[in-house]
Amino acid sequence: MPTSKSDLDAYFDANAERVRGELFDFLRIPSVSAKSEHDLDTARAAEWVASSLRAAGLVASLHETPGHPIVVGEWRKAAAGAPTVLIYGHYDVQPAEPLDLWTSPPFEPTVRDGNVYARGSVDDKGQLFLHVKALESLLAVHGTLPVNVIVVAEGEEEVGSVNLENFIEANREMLAADAVVISDSAMFAPGMPSILSSLRGLAYFQIDVQGAKGDLHSGSYGGAVANPAMALARILATFHDADGRIAIPGFYDSVLPWPDHVREQMRGLPFNEEEYIADLAVPALGGEKGYTTLERTWIRPTCEVNGLLSGYTGEGAKTVLPAKAMAKVSCRLVPGQDPQQIERLMEAHVKAVAPRGVTVTVNHLHGGRPWRAELGGPIYDAAKTALTAAFGREPVIVGEGGSIPVVGDFERILGAPVLLVGFGLPGENAHAPDEWMSLENFDKGMRAMAALWGEYAKEKARGE
Amino acid sequence: MPTSKSDLDAYFDANAERVRGELFDFLRIPSVSAKSEHDLDTARAAEWVASSLRAAGLVASLHETPGHPIVVGEWRKAAAGAPTVLIYGHYDVQPAEPLDLWTSPPFEPTVRDGNVYARGSVDDKGQLFLHVKALESLLAVHGTLPVNVIVVAEGEEEVGSVNLENFIEANREMLAADAVVISDSAMFAPGMPSILSSLRGLAYFQIDVQGAKGDLHSGSYGGAVANPAMALARILATFHDADGRIAIPGFYDSVLPWPDHVREQMRGLPFNEEEYIADLAVPALGGEKGYTTLERTWIRPTCEVNGLLSGYTGEGAKTVLPAKAMAKVSCRLVPGQDPQQIERLMEAHVKAVAPRGVTVTVNHLHGGRPWRAELGGPIYDAAKTALTAAFGREPVIVGEGGSIPVVGDFERILGAPVLLVGFGLPGENAHAPDEWMSLENFDKGMRAMAALWGEYAKEKARGE
Repeated sequence: MPTSKSDLDAYFDANAERVRGELFDFLRIPSVSAKSEHDLDTARAAEWVASSLRAAGLVASLHETPGHPIVVGEWRKAAAGAPTVLIYGHYDVQPAEPLDLWTSPPFEPTVRDGNVYARGSVDDKGQLFLHVKALESLLAVHGTLPVNVIVVAEGEEEVGSVNLENFIEANREMLAADAVVISDSAMFAPGMPSILSSLRGLAYFQIDVQGAKGDLHSGSYGGAVANPAMALARILATFHDADGRIAIPGFYDSVLPWPDHVREQMRGLPFNEEEYIADLAVPALGGEKGYTTLERTWIRPTCEVNGLLSGYTGEGAKTVLPAKAMAKVSCRLVPGQDPQQIERLMEAHVKAVAPRGVTVTVNHLHGGRPWRAELGGPIYDAAKTALTAAFGREPVIVGEGGSIPVVGDFERILGAPVLLVGFGLPGENAHAPDEWMSLENFDKGMRAMAALWGEYAKEKARGE
Repeated sequence: MPTSKSDLDAYFDANAERVRGELFDFLRIPSVSAKSEHDLDTARAAEWVASSLRAAGLVASLHETPGHPIVVGEWRKAAAGAPTVLIYGHYDVQPAEPLDLWTSPPFEPTVRDGNVYARGSVDDKGQLFLHVKALESLLAVHGTLPVNVIVVAEGEEEVGSVNLENFIEANREMLAADAVVISDSAMFAPGMPSILSSLRGLAYFQIDVQGAKGDLHSGSYGGAVANPAMALARILATFHDADGRIAIPGFYDSVLPWPDHVREQMRGLPFNEEEYIADLAVPALGGEKGYTTLERTWIRPTCEVNGLLSGYTGEGAKTVLPAKAMAKVSCRLVPGQDPQQIERLMEAHVKAVAPRGVTVTVNHLHGGRPWRAELGGPIYDAAKTALTAAFGREPVIVGEGGSIPVVGDFERILGAPVLLVGFGLPGENAHAPDEWMSLENFDKGMRAMAALWGEYAKEKARGE
């Protein structure tokens, strides 16, 4: 059965208003996973997703976890030899507070300037729902799909996806797929479809410096006893050299180089540094010499102080020689680096530079591996074609400075490549008041994702 | 009328029990100047001091201030040409909390091992009272004093002597004196009478580092935006060189050198560094190369971090790139240095080393001048003789790392040398639970101070 593009487009056009109404119904459910007073709402959102999957033509089930349920939708009637894809998204949302900063109520979707404003509009209900509607449309028009499909929608992404890894591990046969597709990110700019090339990992530490057994009078003891806060400052000051390069020995040793064409493409993206500086209200940018701002946040590792505490921090003056000082320090890691390796290097370096007279301890609080996309292969090539068709231009490759641990989990446990293709936009206020999603991006994203599966089946068939 | 040493000693011996009883009555008054619920007690202590001055034979008056009154006792019947001395002390005490750490109640004087335990025993009621009793004894035995005497007892020393400077300024004629004597410090060791050679001054700053207009996500922005906490650490790390010397340009330029014999004498004091280290529970001492621990705390300036605050300081990990970072920094100053000069040097240095991408401000919160004793002249020579007679050994010269602003005020406004001679002991717990004073030191201090005035009159007469 050949795909009739015009029939599908006609279906999208004819159903646009109904689809928007359904999206708004979904957005009206305050499924705030972090707040137990919303537990019934979160449960209702899970049921709502299952119903919409069933309405689209999938078999849907709810899987209980110690927290909020995971919704699984399945359609496994593709032609023999067709690949299987897994679509991941989440139906929970961030808390809406502070409520007084919202222009319209967070759970009453409101359209302004072609964008829908609501908590969860772009993160991630809108992006999850456009996939459901793409599947529904394909099934409605063609009666079948070119691939087998598994949809996994969790309700705890905003509270750390604490039960998802176990669920994938426990259900790896049910979830077995040839590719994983996730739409929970943003495009680089309006009209510019984007594929994520990498995520940074994390190694988060607490450094504690202990001096005397208690706070001392800085007059009586100052000068003779090492000052833990000063010792901490001297330790932190060794983390970078004068060029902003991290000076912890061995830190860059396993960093994978990026192909020149990726860096060239990143350098070609329309990035307005003056606007960026003005938005942040900083006198100038900082960072590692030899890299652009985008490279510094996407493909280069960092070492940041996240917190400092020592001695007297109230108003005015107190002449205390503090007994201890604490820093929270975290390194963003890039592909090739490993949190445990960085933990060893950090600890060895801190011990090596720690001044006399204090006791320094380094605790590793939290870590996550970096991730790098393959930027090639059937799902990547298919996405390039589908996005180009829907948006009228080729996708750009972008990085992401943050971490999404679940990406690595899917890749590792299922052994399948992950495609991160999102339809948000800069300034979308995910996690902030006045979150919004472009309705044009919802529509084009839905059409692109509908086209993706046919392209993917073709790419896979070509490869075999 | 020649001084009969044996008559006076007999008087001290005969009245020891009564004097102790009176001291205990004084210590029973909870004259906690910092707490308004003790205002009546503090007023009662002022009256008590005035009564005891009158009983000794002085004319006493209470001078109201915006805070607690200042008690002045006067005896001006010395022979023509005799010098005038001013004795300063304070009748207020520190709060006693935490009460559960006291072995016996803080306002119920209790003798253990030859020491009286009570709040205010050594700081400063016991030391003020031994002067009153020395005067009383001299007047009782001889009917006269070899010097004119002014006693100034304030009730706000523990809350910063906020009204004393104005009082001295406004009453400089009434308070005009040839020498000022203060007993509010400690001897270096038991049996070792001590004269203070210097006090350190203070220049206290707050350094604020501002980055972006708000906290940022360390994943999205980390690497491209200067980190204010890291910038602050890098600034603080420039304050000292590898030898613990302060590296702020010009910092030592006006430091006065000490005579070799003073440093030699300090180096000869029986100081147990291992005990000091064990008491503090530090792995090793820190400080400036080329100086002993006593020199580092007494005669060398410092630059200390008193407080640090930035970003997330709670439990666990939060991936924030802080918008700002703050340090409280203070320099202890030594004779020759001036707080305003240090303020200029500090600000210039911080501006010079501040990294790009952040805005750094330095605020001078508080300052005080250092002070150096003359270590010579009639009052010093007289004290040496009187202390040697009472304690059976020559006094040692000791420094003090803290600041007592009132010392400089007396010297500057009255134009008179100040003698700091105290009878406390190391570990006396001034400002802490279980404050105590040695009863032997009370007795010997009283006898020494009684002998001081005759010796001083002789020294003055010799000089003219």
